[in-house]
Amino acid sequence: MNDDADRRYHVDGEVVPAGSATIHVEDRGFRYGDAARETMRAYGGTVFRWDRHADRLARSCEALSIDHGLSDAELRDRIDETLEANGLSDAVCEVSVTRGRPANGSDRDGAADRFDPRVESDPTVVVAVRPLPRGGVGSDPVFDAPATLQTVKTRKTPDRAVPADATTHARVNEVLARLELRVTGADEALLSDADGDVVGGADSSLFFTDGEGLQTPSLDGPVVPRAARAEVIDVAEEEAIPVEEGSYAPSEVREADEVFLANATWGIRPVRTVDGIAVDGEGEGVSGPLTTLLSRLFDRRVEAACYGGRRS
Amino acid sequence: MNDDADRRYHVDGEVVPAGSATIHVEDRGFRYGDAARETMRAYGGTVFRWDRHADRLARSCEALSIDHGLSDAELRDRIDETLEANGLSDAVCEVSVTRGRPANGSDRDGAADRFDPRVESDPTVVVAVRPLPRGGVGSDPVFDAPATLQTVKTRKTPDRAVPADATTHARVNEVLARLELRVTGADEALLSDADGDVVGGADSSLFFTDGEGLQTPSLDGPVVPRAARAEVIDVAEEEAIPVEEGSYAPSEVREADEVFLANATWGIRPVRTVDGIAVDGEGEGVSGPLTTLLSRLFDRRVEAACYGGRRS
Repeated sequence: MNDDADRRYHVDGEVVPAGSATIHVEDRGFRYGDAARETMRAYGGTVFRWDRHADRLARSCEALSIDHGLSDAELRDRIDETLEANGLSDAVCEVSVTRGRPANGSDRDGAADRFDPRVESDPTVVVAVRPLPRGGVGSDPVFDAPATLQTVKTRKTPDRAVPADATTHARVNEVLARLELRVTGADEALLSDADGDVVGGADSSLFFTDGEGLQTPSLDGPVVPRAARAEVIDVAEEEAIPVEEGSYAPSEVREADEVFLANATWGIRPVRTVDGIAVDGEGEGVSGPLTTLLSRLFDRRVEAACYGGRRS
Repeated sequence: MNDDADRRYHVDGEVVPAGSATIHVEDRGFRYGDAARETMRAYGGTVFRWDRHADRLARSCEALSIDHGLSDAELRDRIDETLEANGLSDAVCEVSVTRGRPANGSDRDGAADRFDPRVESDPTVVVAVRPLPRGGVGSDPVFDAPATLQTVKTRKTPDRAVPADATTHARVNEVLARLELRVTGADEALLSDADGDVVGGADSSLFFTDGEGLQTPSLDGPVVPRAARAEVIDVAEEEAIPVEEGSYAPSEVREADEVFLANATWGIRPVRTVDGIAVDGEGEGVSGPLTTLLSRLFDRRVEAACYGGRRS
């Protein structure tokens, strides 16, 4: 549909063509990953669960002490403007808030201020949107197939180094985890914490079931509190499916009846294999019963919230 | 001397004015901190210990599997060109290699490739230089005063999450450490690892002495193997000063006779206070004897290597 070169971005308050969607090399977002980001989906022109994403972005900005000075409504307007400028209603949307470029002269001492976030700077908001297929009831998934999941040696950064609930542009931990997948060609990396308990995918929340209820790594560990994670738990609880948040070894995931991943873009994505071993409940490309049920209920919520429930 | 707006940068093979020194918002260096960086000093137009810095940069690129395709000589030429374009001979120089922007269409699946470094991309080299005073024998330090050092709660990212010897653009760990200094106004944050052993400053290597020899955190922990760290060890060993690389508690630093920090920009910077407590050997702005000796020897090496030894 729209080619990358024709894409439009919202940068520092203005809609600009792709060729002008740049930031300065002195911007701290580039130099240090010193920026917050939130990723969300627009379905039918409406951001799904905007309130949750706005809260998450505010939390990330707070952790970094970045004050962009905009209201949630102003941020949402910028997303809407970007969707409109791209003629998109079904898309993935990323909102970034970078601390910006240090004021002229404030980095005069060179290394003295290299990582120092106390220097004066002017935060910049960037909105990027990319086309995705329609979601909701009866929609085609955005992924080609159920995921292959692979445990990796790279451990998740602990909360005491960088809190998992601050989503920033500094993601080399996840990049290194994904790099390990070159050997197997798996879709997603399964990371564990320092204790060896699983925390989730590099870019997705992990759920699995032993046939009884739903299990997911607890937020007590360095687990990203994604809006999609909260949504899945909501959906399950509404259906009176027990949800257990706990600490789990990789072997418990490998031996589960069903495994799936969740994030804003994929929604719910079934997992076909873990470490090359077929997941029990998955066969011939058909998802297990709990994953199928939750996916359908998730799609209904998208339909109701964003398409006015026309197909539900 | 040269104002920020007049500064010139080397971006993707060309010297450009500050206003054009930008990278695209889709560049992975901005989105994920997915870029290697090396910081070094030029004295009298010559990069000090280029070989060490070139090795370090190559190591960081290797850890990220980024292949910029340039020889060390070509990289150095770009630094020289940038210094010349800015009319600078005494400067701090940063070379960054970002994985670049994913090829048109290769991120079509949205989140599927979000952190994925396996997508096709074209690495970009950025060189930035900033003026600093002349170094070497009899030079004025680049810092205003000996440093105040403060232990922080933020722990250094462990090697199993991101190896400390890969210097990338993802530095939120260090940013958070520096943010903690808002309370005390200290110059540098002293970080410890998960076991509570000190690893160094947010942007500097740590050395201290109990009066016998020199102590510094061992590379067995998540300690950055800075070129300046290696240089200080070389200088000490040449003077037959015993250097012990080990694991140390913050209390050992607080109780030391002398404490100093080292990085490419500062060279050797004495520490005046640790957690608000005056360092024993430091009084009335005068450095302790070992720090003074090592600083003088360090300056001599700079003089010999970069200014042709004219003043040494």
